[in-house]
Amino acid sequence: MRVSIIGATGYAGAELLRILLGHPKAEVVHATSESHTGKPLSEIYPHFLGLFDRPLESMEDIERIAEDSDFIFIGLPAGHAMEIGLAVADYPVRIIDLGADYRFHDTAVYEHWYKVSHSHPNAERVYGLAELYRGAIKEAKIIGNAGCYTTASILALAPLVKDGLIDLDSIVIDAKSGVSGAGRSAKLPNHFPELFDNFKAYGVATHRHTPEIEQALSDLCGTPIMLQFTPHLVPMSRGILSTCYAKLADGVTADRVDESFQSLYKDEYFIRLRGRGAYPETKYVRGSNFCDLGWHIDERTNRVIVLSAIDNLVKGAAGQAVQNFNIACGFDEKLGLTTAPMYP
Amino acid sequence: MRVSIIGATGYAGAELLRILLGHPKAEVVHATSESHTGKPLSEIYPHFLGLFDRPLESMEDIERIAEDSDFIFIGLPAGHAMEIGLAVADYPVRIIDLGADYRFHDTAVYEHWYKVSHSHPNAERVYGLAELYRGAIKEAKIIGNAGCYTTASILALAPLVKDGLIDLDSIVIDAKSGVSGAGRSAKLPNHFPELFDNFKAYGVATHRHTPEIEQALSDLCGTPIMLQFTPHLVPMSRGILSTCYAKLADGVTADRVDESFQSLYKDEYFIRLRGRGAYPETKYVRGSNFCDLGWHIDERTNRVIVLSAIDNLVKGAAGQAVQNFNIACGFDEKLGLTTAPMYP
Amino acid sequence: MRVSIIGATGYAGAELLRILLGHPKAEVVHATSESHTGKPLSEIYPHFLGLFDRPLESMEDIERIAEDSDFIFIGLPAGHAMEIGLAVADYPVRIIDLGADYRFHDTAVYEHWYKVSHSHPNAERVYGLAELYRGAIKEAKIIGNAGCYTTASILALAPLVKDGLIDLDSIVIDAKSGVSGAGRSAKLPNHFPELFDNFKAYGVATHRHTPEIEQALSDLCGTPIMLQFTPHLVPMSRGILSTCYAKLADGVTADRVDESFQSLYKDEYFIRLRGRGAYPETKYVRGSNFCDLGWHIDERTNRVIVLSAIDNLVKGAAGQAVQNFNIACGFDEKLGLTTAPMYP
Amino acid sequence: MRVSIIGATGYAGAELLRILLGHPKAEVVHATSESHTGKPLSEIYPHFLGLFDRPLESMEDIERIAEDSDFIFIGLPAGHAMEIGLAVADYPVRIIDLGADYRFHDTAVYEHWYKVSHSHPNAERVYGLAELYRGAIKEAKIIGNAGCYTTASILALAPLVKDGLIDLDSIVIDAKSGVSGAGRSAKLPNHFPELFDNFKAYGVATHRHTPEIEQALSDLCGTPIMLQFTPHLVPMSRGILSTCYAKLADGVTADRVDESFQSLYKDEYFIRLRGRGAYPETKYVRGSNFCDLGWHIDERTNRVIVLSAIDNLVKGAAGQAVQNFNIACGFDEKLGLTTAPMYP
Repeated sequence: MRVSIIGATGYAGAELLRILLGHPKAEVVHATSESHTGKPLSEIYPHFLGLFDRPLESMEDIERIAEDSDFIFIGLPAGHAMEIGLAVADYPVRIIDLGADYRFHDTAVYEHWYKVSHSHPNAERVYGLAELYRGAIKEAKIIGNAGCYTTASILALAPLVKDGLIDLDSIVIDAKSGVSGAGRSAKLPNHFPELFDNFKAYGVATHRHTPEIEQALSDLCGTPIMLQFTPHLVPMSRGILSTCYAKLADGVTADRVDESFQSLYKDEYFIRLRGRGAYPETKYVRGSNFCDLGWHIDERTNRVIVLSAIDNLVKGAAGQAVQNFNIACGFDEKLGLTTAPMYP
Repeated sequence: MRVSIIGATGYAGAELLRILLGHPKAEVVHATSESHTGKPLSEIYPHFLGLFDRPLESMEDIERIAEDSDFIFIGLPAGHAMEIGLAVADYPVRIIDLGADYRFHDTAVYEHWYKVSHSHPNAERVYGLAELYRGAIKEAKIIGNAGCYTTASILALAPLVKDGLIDLDSIVIDAKSGVSGAGRSAKLPNHFPELFDNFKAYGVATHRHTPEIEQALSDLCGTPIMLQFTPHLVPMSRGILSTCYAKLADGVTADRVDESFQSLYKDEYFIRLRGRGAYPETKYVRGSNFCDLGWHIDERTNRVIVLSAIDNLVKGAAGQAVQNFNIACGFDEKLGLTTAPMYP
Repeated sequence: MRVSIIGATGYAGAELLRILLGHPKAEVVHATSESHTGKPLSEIYPHFLGLFDRPLESMEDIERIAEDSDFIFIGLPAGHAMEIGLAVADYPVRIIDLGADYRFHDTAVYEHWYKVSHSHPNAERVYGLAELYRGAIKEAKIIGNAGCYTTASILALAPLVKDGLIDLDSIVIDAKSGVSGAGRSAKLPNHFPELFDNFKAYGVATHRHTPEIEQALSDLCGTPIMLQFTPHLVPMSRGILSTCYAKLADGVTADRVDESFQSLYKDEYFIRLRGRGAYPETKYVRGSNFCDLGWHIDERTNRVIVLSAIDNLVKGAAGQAVQNFNIACGFDEKLGLTTAPMYP
Repeated sequence: MRVSIIGATGYAGAELLRILLGHPKAEVVHATSESHTGKPLSEIYPHFLGLFDRPLESMEDIERIAEDSDFIFIGLPAGHAMEIGLAVADYPVRIIDLGADYRFHDTAVYEHWYKVSHSHPNAERVYGLAELYRGAIKEAKIIGNAGCYTTASILALAPLVKDGLIDLDSIVIDAKSGVSGAGRSAKLPNHFPELFDNFKAYGVATHRHTPEIEQALSDLCGTPIMLQFTPHLVPMSRGILSTCYAKLADGVTADRVDESFQSLYKDEYFIRLRGRGAYPETKYVRGSNFCDLGWHIDERTNRVIVLSAIDNLVKGAAGQAVQNFNIACGFDEKLGLTTAPMYP
């Protein structure tokens, strides 16, 4: 398959390239960057020296890129993918957008949280979280690849919501991410001495991943859900741990909770059920497409606490995109994604 | 005042020494360590070279230490302070225990969570969280210095609980700590390559700071509280951030929440109200006795989220102990505790 | 090829397994650990969950392992591999030892620096630094895989020593390593809070990698070399940067230095010449088998400074072992080693 | 003493304020910032909340500031302090410049390395490294406070150079610094994910601290010295370790080296001689004005290796400035500088 990466110099774009270079059935035909057009990628990212030294292109002539490609992966800030989607709508090329433009069923929700008006509102699109939307991804023209916090959080709660085991009004998600999630542009808050040996929350009550989690969980239970989501920055490069809280519905036992996880995920290669009482750590999944889950029942408070760990750049971005690509191509879902996590 | 430190080679004990060396009215007369008796402290902790080179003593002859001292600070694992308390009960010396032995009003709660039987159950003791128990601390013989997670969490929620602004059944505390909180003994989970660039939860539903937070908040509202508390390890040395969630009671406005914080804390030197919408960071308080608070109202979910940052070794341990010492001596509460935080 | 890993629970052993799991022509038939015999490896290293859940074996019956295996990789502390080598001397199995037992031409040097007497002194063995000893590795029965600091340092200086461009008496190597190089056993100096946000030297004038570097460089120029080597610990998990200093011989120009690097390395896939004036960074090679080199000429002092970056667990241990394995098998040297570095 | 800080929002300026706030004989009368004029400092640096909330001033009216102040501390990029020095030349105010403008005896050296022409070349000035220039500092109008790498490196080598114990042509200084040394302006190379878990050299053969070290060491031996200096970035906030190499002169014994250190430093409070065979660590001096020294003799190579650790923002900048201030005022040199290092 001929694939192109639009926006190859963001962290997600570069990670996508890392994975695609090892994919047996993908050939990268174009990689673009508007700020570094003409420079070899290995000048921007020296770790690619000898592996990908071709000059970066501009995406100006997106039609030509569309003609050359079976798939376009887009790694751009919100608001840009929709323009590309519109521009190549009549080409057979398929799109996997790592950003938010195509993630929402309801364009109004996107416009409300992202404060932009959508130029391609009626595009047929599918939410790109493979474990839950696999069927639709197979045939989709446009896949709105799920976000990082959202992937960790949705996968943690999906079984419980689907099986009606928790009080939907009681959900609190306290999530923690490495700093690569904030992107590569240098700003004071992400300046090394400011973040190092430091910990903080941000985006309380306002983070844009909130409605995305709500949408996916609502899909599972058929009821609109409103939940609490709080992101934090961990002084590390990669990894997300999501700590998810909910009150158990009446009469739900620990065994019932265990069964719910088994039932939804027992055949999912990328979901590793560490089990009840387990503590996933972000380093156990680093560099891999795994989502590790552990859960705990607090009998005192009647709450279930689910812990979910992913690599934000892999299962939370580029790896998930390749997983979606594999599904969309009819390939084995694991193709190019079998490297073991890098530890320590 | 003549003071002694029992257990000077733990992180809290060493931090206590750091602070006491700069205290204008405290003279350290004994510093003990059973594992390093006879060695100069500066051999165990080279940062003290030239500042405290005296050999460490044994605490075997605790009666003599008691005779020499106006105050004994204890920095030992749970279960040891009670033996000392018992041994010196008839001496005029006063005790500030940095451990848990004297923190609970109800010995049964201690015994249940700490799995030890208490040998000094009827000791008169005061819970050593200065902002809330100042009056009692003044005269106390034994002060059970508040714990690290607990200090951050109680101070975050105290105004709201005291003023009846939140649903007591809805409290979720998601806390994150630097690794010094785990002590100085080398074990695999705290081996550098395991924790570095990593993030994880631990002690879900079982951490011993839970009943301590519940006790203090229950004191404030007169009703038994049961809450959710989850600690996490951040790959950094020092600092705690506590993210506290609760549903607002009916009709509570954002202004009412603001007033509540102002009302309880406006004269507290060590509580810095960063205000509604603010994001305290652990580095802003590093090395200091401050507790920084910020809070947020989510109108969608009707929850209040309070963020609380302390240095776990200072306001969460040694600094708080010195603050309690100052109160107990009738000194200015800030004595020896005015050094600005160290940033970056 | 059937391969076995003796000592699979050290960091190097685990990294070896990570690489071998992705190797198209190697099948891991045995993985041993004396301290964890019988437990699934994924219990000791949860990142392997789903990838390698087989129970660890004991190496007690090493003869049986030898019979089952074409290659034995050994990842044990110094002094153990020689016993294995002796025990399986009569089996056709070949050995790649990641430790020091088989690295030295002269057993007396080993015994002097490692303070042990060698039980297998006359073993035919080859020093396993592929770029310099490739020919001999092809046929070797026992390969003494090069060490981590040594690989970075030898590769940095080899061209200059080989071509006679530097004053051999002036060599100073100042090397810095991530903490995984110190192994997985938990000790106070490597306890997280001690090392984090900290930097120090160790082993000045006494580190065991010194004679290994001297041996390889002496091989290149035919003259015994004595050099200065100083290791340091960087508060990170992986990576080595070696900063190598030497006085240029009379009349050596910058161009001549450039030619020397080109001449020796232009066809080496794993050596990436970043060029004169370049600054290799450890993160650019993380998780890969690359050694990145940059060099600088100081005209004021007439010194050349070479900077060399590797991942200590890959090119400095497990990756190099697999590279040697590929050579020994007559495979493409890159097999299983083509994953791009993981950045950031 | 009335003191003013010009450039209070750089890391060195802020650290200076931290120290001066605890100084019993200094009152900060003005603190300036051109980029944040009018804002409270605690808005730029929230760790100062409650400690220094006054608005930052502009330095435009520097004459008025000069009139109000006994001392002006300057924390600005190279090239700015000379303008201030010129402007206030006729005022009785004394200047302590934390930058490089007044560090060099020979203006031509400054102009060559800093690529600017000096507008105040004939200013009477003193190099502000207290242990070596104490006498001159006492009376100086302008003190050119020593740099960070330079302080660590000069103090390491001073005894040996002064006593003629080493071959002056053989000096190699390999220095490693935390990232705060690079200042507070956000740029890609210092963006958190780029530096974290990473290590690199920079400024090989060109770093501006080179001539400063050479000047001070030349002062000690009366001979021009040319040496090798290489800085590196450690992924931590604070701290410098300097590893200094030199060939011993003929017949110099280890005891003679020990005597040399004792002789020069035995009465220096801020120099802590950890002794022969010792390994200073940056964390042992963090937050303090100490310089810890350890040294090693390699009998094989006849080299001495000196290890020197400081906090780059304290003994390498703000602490040293206050030490110089104390000397210039005739105060006890330790005033305001007695806080113990912060560990861990």
